[in-house]
Amino acid sequence: MIRIGLVGAGRIANVHARTIDAHPNAQLVLVADPYEQAVKQLAEKYQARYSLDPNDVFTDDEVDAVIICSPTPLHVEHILQAAKAGKPALCEKPVAMETAAVEKLVAELSGIEHTTMLGFNRRFDPTFARMHKMVEDGVVGKVEQVTIISRDPAAPPKEYIAVSGGIFKDMTIHDFDTARFFLGDITSVYAIGQNLDPELKDTGDFDGAVITLTNATGATATITNSRHCTSGYDQRLEIFGDQATINADNIRANQVRISNGEFTDAKDVYLDFFLERYEAAYAVELNEFFAAISENRKPATSIEDGAKALRIAEAAEESARTGKVVYL
Amino acid sequence: MIRIGLVGAGRIANVHARTIDAHPNAQLVLVADPYEQAVKQLAEKYQARYSLDPNDVFTDDEVDAVIICSPTPLHVEHILQAAKAGKPALCEKPVAMETAAVEKLVAELSGIEHTTMLGFNRRFDPTFARMHKMVEDGVVGKVEQVTIISRDPAAPPKEYIAVSGGIFKDMTIHDFDTARFFLGDITSVYAIGQNLDPELKDTGDFDGAVITLTNATGATATITNSRHCTSGYDQRLEIFGDQATINADNIRANQVRISNGEFTDAKDVYLDFFLERYEAAYAVELNEFFAAISENRKPATSIEDGAKALRIAEAAEESARTGKVVYL
Amino acid sequence: MIRIGLVGAGRIANVHARTIDAHPNAQLVLVADPYEQAVKQLAEKYQARYSLDPNDVFTDDEVDAVIICSPTPLHVEHILQAAKAGKPALCEKPVAMETAAVEKLVAELSGIEHTTMLGFNRRFDPTFARMHKMVEDGVVGKVEQVTIISRDPAAPPKEYIAVSGGIFKDMTIHDFDTARFFLGDITSVYAIGQNLDPELKDTGDFDGAVITLTNATGATATITNSRHCTSGYDQRLEIFGDQATINADNIRANQVRISNGEFTDAKDVYLDFFLERYEAAYAVELNEFFAAISENRKPATSIEDGAKALRIAEAAEESARTGKVVYL
Amino acid sequence: MIRIGLVGAGRIANVHARTIDAHPNAQLVLVADPYEQAVKQLAEKYQARYSLDPNDVFTDDEVDAVIICSPTPLHVEHILQAAKAGKPALCEKPVAMETAAVEKLVAELSGIEHTTMLGFNRRFDPTFARMHKMVEDGVVGKVEQVTIISRDPAAPPKEYIAVSGGIFKDMTIHDFDTARFFLGDITSVYAIGQNLDPELKDTGDFDGAVITLTNATGATATITNSRHCTSGYDQRLEIFGDQATINADNIRANQVRISNGEFTDAKDVYLDFFLERYEAAYAVELNEFFAAISENRKPATSIEDGAKALRIAEAAEESARTGKVVYL
Repeated sequence: MIRIGLVGAGRIANVHARTIDAHPNAQLVLVADPYEQAVKQLAEKYQARYSLDPNDVFTDDEVDAVIICSPTPLHVEHILQAAKAGKPALCEKPVAMETAAVEKLVAELSGIEHTTMLGFNRRFDPTFARMHKMVEDGVVGKVEQVTIISRDPAAPPKEYIAVSGGIFKDMTIHDFDTARFFLGDITSVYAIGQNLDPELKDTGDFDGAVITLTNATGATATITNSRHCTSGYDQRLEIFGDQATINADNIRANQVRISNGEFTDAKDVYLDFFLERYEAAYAVELNEFFAAISENRKPATSIEDGAKALRIAEAAEESARTGKVVYL
Repeated sequence: MIRIGLVGAGRIANVHARTIDAHPNAQLVLVADPYEQAVKQLAEKYQARYSLDPNDVFTDDEVDAVIICSPTPLHVEHILQAAKAGKPALCEKPVAMETAAVEKLVAELSGIEHTTMLGFNRRFDPTFARMHKMVEDGVVGKVEQVTIISRDPAAPPKEYIAVSGGIFKDMTIHDFDTARFFLGDITSVYAIGQNLDPELKDTGDFDGAVITLTNATGATATITNSRHCTSGYDQRLEIFGDQATINADNIRANQVRISNGEFTDAKDVYLDFFLERYEAAYAVELNEFFAAISENRKPATSIEDGAKALRIAEAAEESARTGKVVYL
Repeated sequence: MIRIGLVGAGRIANVHARTIDAHPNAQLVLVADPYEQAVKQLAEKYQARYSLDPNDVFTDDEVDAVIICSPTPLHVEHILQAAKAGKPALCEKPVAMETAAVEKLVAELSGIEHTTMLGFNRRFDPTFARMHKMVEDGVVGKVEQVTIISRDPAAPPKEYIAVSGGIFKDMTIHDFDTARFFLGDITSVYAIGQNLDPELKDTGDFDGAVITLTNATGATATITNSRHCTSGYDQRLEIFGDQATINADNIRANQVRISNGEFTDAKDVYLDFFLERYEAAYAVELNEFFAAISENRKPATSIEDGAKALRIAEAAEESARTGKVVYL
Repeated sequence: MIRIGLVGAGRIANVHARTIDAHPNAQLVLVADPYEQAVKQLAEKYQARYSLDPNDVFTDDEVDAVIICSPTPLHVEHILQAAKAGKPALCEKPVAMETAAVEKLVAELSGIEHTTMLGFNRRFDPTFARMHKMVEDGVVGKVEQVTIISRDPAAPPKEYIAVSGGIFKDMTIHDFDTARFFLGDITSVYAIGQNLDPELKDTGDFDGAVITLTNATGATATITNSRHCTSGYDQRLEIFGDQATINADNIRANQVRISNGEFTDAKDVYLDFFLERYEAAYAVELNEFFAAISENRKPATSIEDGAKALRIAEAAEESARTGKVVYL
């Protein structure tokens, strides 16, 4: 039984807590968050202890491993604390807001033996994972063109956007990791930022984006993002290879189709947002984290993956601002 | 070049005329129908001669082959005339309204060498034909259960229903032939007739039906009919075998899908009715007729096929009226 | 918190135990099964007590409600014990193997105030439940024709078939309940039993079936069953009404489509069997049971529902054996 | 009756000849091509006259309108001849290989009253036309992101590539017009050229491409091209607006789905190439040409449309060669 300490008691912490509770080999023992009401409620729901000081999670003897759900600006510090305490850690994306901070972290970690996993949950989504396996099994042949459509159901509040780090670090970061999942390291980035929603004009951030990536073999990835989509959380992926094309479709809450005098075979709108759409992915992600600890091996996603996705995000921002291609 | 004489100048005659006109090996030379306006218009459109006397088609020296689009009560007479005149004939379904009439026809034809094809157009539909080939190629394995959904977009006028011979001979007759196409001869029939449309209550005919057929191997066919369907002409087919299941989907006028805040991936309604849905089938059917003539062989569908489908229709009517299974 | 006692420690008991464990308002406290290894393992997994005597569940003071997962022949006895002990009970289908036994049970229960729910899980499946709501909301209009396709991935062992009560009571019983869910009480039954699998010839049971049901309004339900299906557990449903048609599609483990030189848009095979396909349904079913207890109301499915489905199964058996329609 | 003269007797000329023959208001009277065998065969098939001198088409008194299917280098000359002869002309794309040539043509045409239509057939495809109408009807709302996937089934011979003008002018030119169909004039172009097929390495042309376009409103179009695709001629389109998303799916020769132990709901591969996929589009295109002549109005696609698509193609070529964004 792996005893888990949670740093943070927000939305994603609650998702992880439920998964831990249902997992046969893991147990939630401690939750830490300065926001008393949230941390108390979460801890009580799963019969765990709680603390208002995140540091307690790293020093607690009963905590075997840590899941870091703190705000992004604290990620680097918390990852380092876990590593120094010899506790395996799973950290939500992104590692940090700037590549410089991540490089400093990597340098500091270089002398420490640590198990740190980054929460790029899409790699664990049953659909994307199945596609990756098909690529690895040679079903697709040589990967030539990756097409990622990724649209949120509705824009977040302006307050959120203000501290989000911008669309590329906040939203596209997942798509950059997906592109790397199928293409490996990226060599060029060209991004177009869109400002189409009058409501969001004054945020200084883009509300839509189209990014084109290439890798060293000449394969491409095209990412199309929007902060809004009437039909729900639009998450699609196509891998075109010289032997086959594979596609990931959206998910609905049920399998119903309706046909009437206006239209035929209509389905319900997509699952609304990431907690619903990637519910299974979060569970598989934690499973991988627990398995890596049990088997004493490196987890599937590393800080390096986080650093590289962040670097692409910075390049995309630069490209969208300058209108020039950025080479990595 | 096969020179064609058309008996009848109605809706289906017009469909065939257009196909003949576009066919490289056939030419429309004569159209006969007592209704002058229709026959004149059709003949002129395709630079053919016309006559008000159907008999002229069978005696005309320049007519190599005949397509019979006359009203059903005249089919037997016209088939016989064509056979006696030594002209190959394609006759629209059904052969007749009663099995007795068809048996008499078959007896009269027994001494005459003739090429007569029955217009069961669905066998020539690219989708159904592909499915039949998959069955013949062994892809499906042993056919065990056939499911036919066949619904008209809207009920015909009551005047039509009054002379139609009833839903089983008028509408289901095609589905009976489809069942025979995949199952061979039918041994038992159980039919439920529905009277659900208050508008059609006083026609004496059913407006919906569910028919269950079996063949000698124990395989089944289920036919579900309705005189109305909001989403258009609903024509689906499933063949379940011990190696695979194959399905025929409906056809729309285009490949568009639409997703919005209410529904996702909705398509347009189905092609409205048989002339549109089976447009390709009519062309392939004529092609088979012309090919059979050129190659001096039997066409793919025979009077016997018509007789057997009619026999099932009569059994279905009897079953629906008595509530008892009818064995053939 | 509702404290649950489980009678039985088999496959379905394990499914329910996991759901109880994850449920915020329920707790597993006792499991009883004469088979020691299974009961001990299940109890320990969820930190519950165990007993080798099923009777203990009904007398245990700490058990608030009972879930009956015992073999079918014991259902009647266990339902009665729960009712007498004043403990709400959820019983797996079917209630019994013969209508007579259920009628005796209903008579015995008539004087006792009890909360008994029957485990017709499909009513709780998110897809079927959504369809039912669409019907209730008037989206479909008047229901005219129900088409149920229900095929198992592979035949069970002959030993299982020998004690199963036959295909209609064992497998079709769910489809009969689904038909009642959408059509209400059934008035006529016509069934064809198939013996197509040579392996199962000597079981005395059918390995395929086509059943046609009608209700008092003249609406129909067609059920097509098979003990085998190469593509997995084939569970589809169509409700045709005078305003719309709604369909339930099969479920796969992911949303991947693949296209290559042989075929396009191919998906993975269906989820293999009922535990996977109806995983969500089982959870919603237990939720309804717990909610009915908390709200002190009747659960959504009753012993009467079980009795009526069983009566249809007996009629289907009779019809398949005699070749005659059975009227209820 | 519009009497048509055809310049050219190649593949596309044959497609048009068949459409003309089937059209109620048009008649093929003359075909001209220096290649005697081809022109003779085509003319005889449709009972038309033939000539080995293309100039004859423009001077023939019995020719009311001209369809130009000559090699691209002759387009400008033939368009001009038709205009000077006062004969309406439909010319296959592209107008020319260089913008300079088109500009010279436009200048020369400026003083002449002429009816010239450019054969951008995709605008007439029933699916794309329906999507355009949905956009015009406001169903999609404000168009924000256009995604075009366009892949050929297999690379053409190297000899063809050598004279094709390159992938952007030869293949993507259609997609550039499609982008303009939905976005209007394009303001920036970024293109990545791919050389992934070793067989085509020495052609000097790209075998794949990803192009990103923007218009003045900030909307984007992404075009993904490949010279090969195992599943056939892959032609898809998505229009994402703030009210709805609409998609165009690929077309197969039939509506069959197959499910077995390996996969489910697999369809046949796509129609192999443009003559099959856009068969309906070619017919509607000619219909528009004939209608424009009869109604004495401008046709739906003009030389200006051709010029603008060509200008984008040149910009794409420049961008792909320099790695820089090109602004128009």
